[in-house]
Amino acid sequence: MKRTCIKAALNAESPVSDILIKGWVRTKRDSKGFSFLEVNDGSCITNIQVIIDHTPEIEAVLEHIYTGASVSVLGELIESPGKGQKWEVRGKSIELLGAADPETFPLQKKRHSDEFLRTIAHLRPRTNKFGAMFRIRAELSFAVHQFFRDKGFFYVHTPIITGSDCEGAGEMFRVTSLDHDSLAKLGKAEQGANDFFGKESHLTVSGQLSAEMYALALGSVYTFGPTFRAEKSNTPRHAAEFWMIEPEVAFADLEDNMDLSEEMVKYLINHILDKCADDIELFAKFVDKTLMDTLKNITENTFERVAYTDAIELLKKCKKADKFEFKPEYGLDLQTEHERYLTEEHFKKPVIVYDYPVEIKPFYMRLNDDGKTVAAMDLLVPRIGELIGGSQREERLDVLERRITEMGMETEDYWWYLDSRRFGTAPHAGFGMGFERMLMMITGVTNIRDVIPFPRTPKSLEF
Amino acid sequence: MKRTCIKAALNAESPVSDILIKGWVRTKRDSKGFSFLEVNDGSCITNIQVIIDHTPEIEAVLEHIYTGASVSVLGELIESPGKGQKWEVRGKSIELLGAADPETFPLQKKRHSDEFLRTIAHLRPRTNKFGAMFRIRAELSFAVHQFFRDKGFFYVHTPIITGSDCEGAGEMFRVTSLDHDSLAKLGKAEQGANDFFGKESHLTVSGQLSAEMYALALGSVYTFGPTFRAEKSNTPRHAAEFWMIEPEVAFADLEDNMDLSEEMVKYLINHILDKCADDIELFAKFVDKTLMDTLKNITENTFERVAYTDAIELLKKCKKADKFEFKPEYGLDLQTEHERYLTEEHFKKPVIVYDYPVEIKPFYMRLNDDGKTVAAMDLLVPRIGELIGGSQREERLDVLERRITEMGMETEDYWWYLDSRRFGTAPHAGFGMGFERMLMMITGVTNIRDVIPFPRTPKSLEF
Repeated sequence: MKRTCIKAALNAESPVSDILIKGWVRTKRDSKGFSFLEVNDGSCITNIQVIIDHTPEIEAVLEHIYTGASVSVLGELIESPGKGQKWEVRGKSIELLGAADPETFPLQKKRHSDEFLRTIAHLRPRTNKFGAMFRIRAELSFAVHQFFRDKGFFYVHTPIITGSDCEGAGEMFRVTSLDHDSLAKLGKAEQGANDFFGKESHLTVSGQLSAEMYALALGSVYTFGPTFRAEKSNTPRHAAEFWMIEPEVAFADLEDNMDLSEEMVKYLINHILDKCADDIELFAKFVDKTLMDTLKNITENTFERVAYTDAIELLKKCKKADKFEFKPEYGLDLQTEHERYLTEEHFKKPVIVYDYPVEIKPFYMRLNDDGKTVAAMDLLVPRIGELIGGSQREERLDVLERRITEMGMETEDYWWYLDSRRFGTAPHAGFGMGFERMLMMITGVTNIRDVIPFPRTPKSLEF
Repeated sequence: MKRTCIKAALNAESPVSDILIKGWVRTKRDSKGFSFLEVNDGSCITNIQVIIDHTPEIEAVLEHIYTGASVSVLGELIESPGKGQKWEVRGKSIELLGAADPETFPLQKKRHSDEFLRTIAHLRPRTNKFGAMFRIRAELSFAVHQFFRDKGFFYVHTPIITGSDCEGAGEMFRVTSLDHDSLAKLGKAEQGANDFFGKESHLTVSGQLSAEMYALALGSVYTFGPTFRAEKSNTPRHAAEFWMIEPEVAFADLEDNMDLSEEMVKYLINHILDKCADDIELFAKFVDKTLMDTLKNITENTFERVAYTDAIELLKKCKKADKFEFKPEYGLDLQTEHERYLTEEHFKKPVIVYDYPVEIKPFYMRLNDDGKTVAAMDLLVPRIGELIGGSQREERLDVLERRITEMGMETEDYWWYLDSRRFGTAPHAGFGMGFERMLMMITGVTNIRDVIPFPRTPKSLEF
């Protein structure tokens, strides 16, 4: 007989005379003549209640069943007389598939701290909170693909191992196939020449440059893959390995880019509120009481759009101006405190800041006609700060070559990237969104370690 | 005015008086008083034909337009009097967005070899063949997610950087944040201790062990992400970086696993035949004339299932037995020639070989009651050979510990993996499918370099 997953059982339309349920026991309660079991199989947050009458055979099995054990229950799906649940299983027989010793099983029926659960990242998805988190993560991934495909975008797997180490987005991890002896004996140049790819290679920090090549062929594309930063900042918002979503659109300008980012963020939130209502409820109840208001604020408001220059003026003149740790000043990057002030206190909704000074942005952003700013954009949202960063790309070959040279980089290293401006160049734009940031926003969770199955951070590589 | 993508224009239901088309010129043909342009924007394989009457202004633009240029055309969508196309654009005005010098643009209107196109991997998606390939790749990715989600599976992002270097699936790349000087000066142990994660780290060869942890919490899960092999085999079937799909299912045995693999393969092929008919047609016409028959053979037949022991007997006794380069022998792995004989010549359809000798399979595969074989399975398909490899996993703690020790590995390195067998263990099974192999099968393309946007192979890391 095939097992019925608990989600399907709980959604049944009528009683079922023979049903096979398998899952992990969350609690067991013995009564005179019968026992109650709460069983969960991960398909949804709700447990199914199993009531099973004691017979000598059944009691012999039950005595080995504690929290965490996995069981197989054959029974009848009947309407539950209890409150809050529609269906329950009246067990006819029960089998113990795998015991869990109550003395050593780390997940007992009580609230565990997030810190403790990180030390058992392989078991934490068996808790209500992390089960819900990783079901939401799965559904959010699907929503990303659904959103872009419905709009005619093509998904591109941009490479993880890269030969260019100068995209300027952060410190990179090196990848090598050389053994210790070779690494110790060879000089820098020899190491590269002797390595797997015949030159030094790194883990990518962004798929953008590759994605641009595909946008200029297939029109609208996106990447969604892992990216890496070797920065030793041990903060609740940084991980060495995280997933990024990067759409890139030919024949699009900065305004199209802002529109796309706004549409995408609203779509993703609405999708999760619709498809993961039960799982989101847990976070709204136990993690962040203001979660639903925060999300509604984002989906129901038109995002504010303000030029960087105006944002600086606004920050300089605001009531809080004296209290900022960093003085807002034209030509300096916005600090987190500035970003949060703009979105949380001043506008009280998502804000897109655009047209940043050319000096503080990478070479590939399009120079505006003023010669001083570039067509960049950052989307700031309450409580998270920067969620998205993007720009219209510099499509003019001469301007791009000048910018590369000005920044002390070599145009030869970018021969293929420049080719795309040499042959049939076209205006285009794109942005990047950290998938984990989005997930933190949607769940109210404040530590990035708690939205990644097995997070990678400095000195931390267990599992 | 917003541009209309060419796919949408070609699917129009009625004429459109004002339409804006943008794309790259595939060909231009001048006639007396007017010109024809074939324009493609990557949204589909078909170009749209633009007819534009000569005026002095328009001629001044047209004289700079050659193959590869990007243009913007404002015009009228009208029924085409020509054969083979329903709609065409009668241009009212044309703008040159980006020129392409006919002397240097590498993609002229002629057939280029795959080898040549690999040297311009950033431009090849602008050809019919590679445009089609990468639209199919995008749709196949989506189909993977759709298939599993519809069946209640949760997508898990298993880590790319891993601390375990002994999964036995192949040679691994090392990841380090140490600079050259540190690498040259420090001993092996010191290197690890001083590195980013406080120990030596590598790129993953498989997400399986992590995925198992999630299957034993969420029930049915899958991973779909990049995996890496540092093997210097420069063959048409190997890449150092490729994407893998790995479902893992709790409460499933080997037979469930075989059923799932068969269902998935058929679903993916049918999905592509349905959604990418135009793009697939190119491959059936120009790349592999037998493609449609091959795919039909897979979708319409029940896969053959044969035990390894029987497969060996069959190979020993077959007419071709003398001609094999490697003699088939119980206890040895099947060679590609054996696999291809089974699926292409003997059964003439997909074959699942199962129950392999314990000696030739990894520690995590479930030991059968005979004590000699494990519950492994390989799916072989005509022309590709092995497409999928999987197994029921060893869920019994004592057996698993014994197997780890027997293979000379340390149980302490797997404390978290073994925990899942210690606490509520359950039968479970899963498999891995190389995404690129599947893509090669679906398109008939024989070199893995031609199904990956920017392939990574020994000594090759351009772009």
